[in-house]
Amino acid sequence: MNKALNGVTILDFSHLLQGPFATQLLADMGANVIKIERAGSGDMFRSMTFFAKWVGGSESPNFLAWNRNKRSLALNLKSPEVHAIIMEMAKKADVVVQNFRPGVLAKLGYGYEDFKAVNPGIIYCSGSGYGEDGPYVTRPGQDMLIQGLSGLMANTGRGDQNPVPVGAGLADQIGAMNMVYGILSALYYREKTGIGQKIEVNLLAGLIAHLNQEYVGVLNLGEDFVRPNSGIGHPGMQAPFGVYETADGGYVTIAMSPFKTLYETLEAPALAVYDDLGTLFEKRDEVWEKVNAETKKFGTADLLDRLLAADIWCAEVKDIRKAAEDPQVTHLGLITSYEHPRAGTVRVVGPAIRMSETQPTIDRPAPLVGQHGREILAEFGISAETIARLEEGGDMTVSEA
Amino acid sequence: MNKALNGVTILDFSHLLQGPFATQLLADMGANVIKIERAGSGDMFRSMTFFAKWVGGSESPNFLAWNRNKRSLALNLKSPEVHAIIMEMAKKADVVVQNFRPGVLAKLGYGYEDFKAVNPGIIYCSGSGYGEDGPYVTRPGQDMLIQGLSGLMANTGRGDQNPVPVGAGLADQIGAMNMVYGILSALYYREKTGIGQKIEVNLLAGLIAHLNQEYVGVLNLGEDFVRPNSGIGHPGMQAPFGVYETADGGYVTIAMSPFKTLYETLEAPALAVYDDLGTLFEKRDEVWEKVNAETKKFGTADLLDRLLAADIWCAEVKDIRKAAEDPQVTHLGLITSYEHPRAGTVRVVGPAIRMSETQPTIDRPAPLVGQHGREILAEFGISAETIARLEEGGDMTVSEA
Repeated sequence: MNKALNGVTILDFSHLLQGPFATQLLADMGANVIKIERAGSGDMFRSMTFFAKWVGGSESPNFLAWNRNKRSLALNLKSPEVHAIIMEMAKKADVVVQNFRPGVLAKLGYGYEDFKAVNPGIIYCSGSGYGEDGPYVTRPGQDMLIQGLSGLMANTGRGDQNPVPVGAGLADQIGAMNMVYGILSALYYREKTGIGQKIEVNLLAGLIAHLNQEYVGVLNLGEDFVRPNSGIGHPGMQAPFGVYETADGGYVTIAMSPFKTLYETLEAPALAVYDDLGTLFEKRDEVWEKVNAETKKFGTADLLDRLLAADIWCAEVKDIRKAAEDPQVTHLGLITSYEHPRAGTVRVVGPAIRMSETQPTIDRPAPLVGQHGREILAEFGISAETIARLEEGGDMTVSEA
Repeated sequence: MNKALNGVTILDFSHLLQGPFATQLLADMGANVIKIERAGSGDMFRSMTFFAKWVGGSESPNFLAWNRNKRSLALNLKSPEVHAIIMEMAKKADVVVQNFRPGVLAKLGYGYEDFKAVNPGIIYCSGSGYGEDGPYVTRPGQDMLIQGLSGLMANTGRGDQNPVPVGAGLADQIGAMNMVYGILSALYYREKTGIGQKIEVNLLAGLIAHLNQEYVGVLNLGEDFVRPNSGIGHPGMQAPFGVYETADGGYVTIAMSPFKTLYETLEAPALAVYDDLGTLFEKRDEVWEKVNAETKKFGTADLLDRLLAADIWCAEVKDIRKAAEDPQVTHLGLITSYEHPRAGTVRVVGPAIRMSETQPTIDRPAPLVGQHGREILAEFGISAETIARLEEGGDMTVSEA
C-alpha cells in the first residue's frame, strides 16, 4: 500500500522525545527518516528507562516507543569529513529536524543557513523548550517544567494540596505534534511554490496553545481557576463533572449530563436540591461527596451499565495494563508489536489514525545505534572506501543486528 | 505574507473542541475554512462557558478560543435544497471535517461516499471518541472519559488518593492534532497523486498513542506504574523529579539533574545518603519530603536563581494569569487579541509556531452564527434569490455583526 509521505527524505538530528516522536509520526506515514545519532552511544534516550529495568535486558522503553520506522546513521558531527558528507546528503533531502538547545547545532555547522546554502528548498524544523531567543533561551526546557510554567499544573489536583503534574510527558508530545503541523504545512507549500523555510517550535508555546480556552476564560472573564477540593475534574467546571468511587474499589468518570438524569439513575432524589447551575458550581465539592456516596453503592460494571443506559456520559478509569486489554482498544488494534534484534517482541501502541488510501503502518523496529550507516551512505553515493575509513577512525559507529 | 495553506477550502461541519481546534490550526495556516453550523443556535460550544460568565456578556470563551480565522454558514442540514447546495459547494472544496457521533452525518447524506460521488478527490476527516465501530461505538466520547480510559488519569495524583484528571481538555486537543496530521498528509498525497481519501481519528487512540512510552514500559517490563505519595512528578520516576514548595507559598519543579548537584546547591549534604538510583526510586517519597524541607527554606525567586546557576533543570509553577505575564511568554508574543463584534477585544493565545516564509496569523475573530452565509453562498455561485429564500424559510441563519 502507498504511504502519504513516500519519497520524502528527512535528516533527523533529534533526540529524547519531542523530535523523535515527530519524525516517527512522519515515518509511520512513509517518510524516509534517517536518524543521525552521535557516534558511540547515540540518542541520550537509549540510556533512560522506567523501573530501572530494560526491555530484553538492554533496550530503553522510551527509545523503543519513539523510533520505529527509522534507520540509524551514527556519526561524529564534529568531523569535517562528516560535515561534508551530510551537506552532500542534504542536497537530496527534503526536511531537517533537530531539538538541541538553541544554537548548539548551528555552531557545529548544521544550522538552517548551512543547509539552505546547499539546498534552497530545504525545510528546517527546530524544537526547543522556550523558543530560540528571549530571557529563558539558555534555560533547560523539559516537559514537567513546561507543565508548571504553562498553568496546566496549577489547574490540576486539589485546592488544599499542591499542584499536580500529569503522569505522562504531554508537553513533549504536543511539541512533537506542532513539529508535524509545521513540517507538513511547509511541505505542501513547497510542493506548490518550490520554496523551503525554517520552522521553530517550542514546548512552552505548544502547551499554552492547547490551553487556549482556559487562557481565554481567565484573561477575559476576570476570574481565576481555583482547584476544587474533591474529585471534580476541572477547576472551571461544576458538579457532577468528575471522578467517582465504586463499591469494588474502582473509579468511574462522569462528564456533562443532565443532573436530574444522574440522580434519578442513582435513585437519589434527595440530590434534587442542588439542581441548578449556580449551586452545582458553588457547592461542587459538597455535591461531589453526595454523589460519591451514591456511586459507592454500586460495583463498577453495574454502575456503568446503569449510567450508560440513561445516556449519562461516563467511562471506567483504567490503569495502563487494563487499558491495553480494554475491548475497544482491542477492537481498534491499537496495541501491536514489532520484532527487535535485541529486545525481541516489543509491544507498542500503533498508529492512532486510519486512512483509506495511505494507512500508516509499522514496518521496522527502532534501530540500533548506526545500524544502517553503511547502506544509507551507499545510497547517497558515498564510496565503500570512505565508509570504511569513517568506521576505522571512529567517526562512524555501526551496530550489527 | 503568503500562508502555507492558501487555496485550500475546507467544509467544516465540526463542533465543540476536537474538530474546531483542528480547523483553526488549518485556518491559521491560510486555509479557507467554512464553518457549517446548524441554523438557529449554531455550534453547541457557543452555549458553554467557565465561571457561569460570558465574554462581553454574551460570548463563550470556549467558542472564542477555537474558531478564529473561520467564516460561518448556518444551515438546516435536513433541507433537501441545502443538501443540494452543499454538494455543489463540495465540488470546489478540498477537505470535509466533522466530529458528530459515528453515522449521524452520513444518515443526513453527508458521509464520505456522498462527497466522493461529487468530488472523487475530496479528503474527508471524521473524529469521534472511540472510533467508528466496535463495542463503544454508541457511547458518548468525551475528553475526561478518555483520560480515565487511557490510563492517563491512573498515572496522575497520589497513590493514597483517587486518580486525578488533568485540569484541561488535552484528549480533545490531541485529537485535533491527529486530524491535522491526517489531513495535511492526505493533502500532500493528493497533490502528488490526485487521490483523495477518508481519514478516521478518535480521542482514545490519539491519547494512547501519546502515552506510548508508558505503554511500552508497562507491557514489556512486567511492572505497573504506582502513583507516589508525594510531589514526585511521574509514577515511573525516581526522586527528585517533582514539584517542591518554597518559603513564600510558591512551587518549583525540579526535573532530571544530578542529585549531588541538587543537595550541594541546597546546602543539604545529609541528603547524600540517598544518592544512588535504586534508593532514589524506592525511597522517593521520603526523599521528596527531605528535599521539600530544604526548598521551603528559600523564596521562589531565590531558589530558582540558585538552582539555575547550578544548571539544575527547574522552573516556577505559575497559574494561568501569571503564566500570561511570564517574561518568556511575553517575549514570544504568545498572548495576543482580536476584535470581536460582540465580545470586544478578546485576549487569546496566538499561533504556537514560527515559520520564516508562511507565518500563521490571526486575521479574523470567531464568527457569529451564520455571519458570512450570504457572501459564502454567493462565492459558490448561489443566486441572491435562492439565498433570500433560504433565509426566509428558516433554513439559513444570518447574524449581523
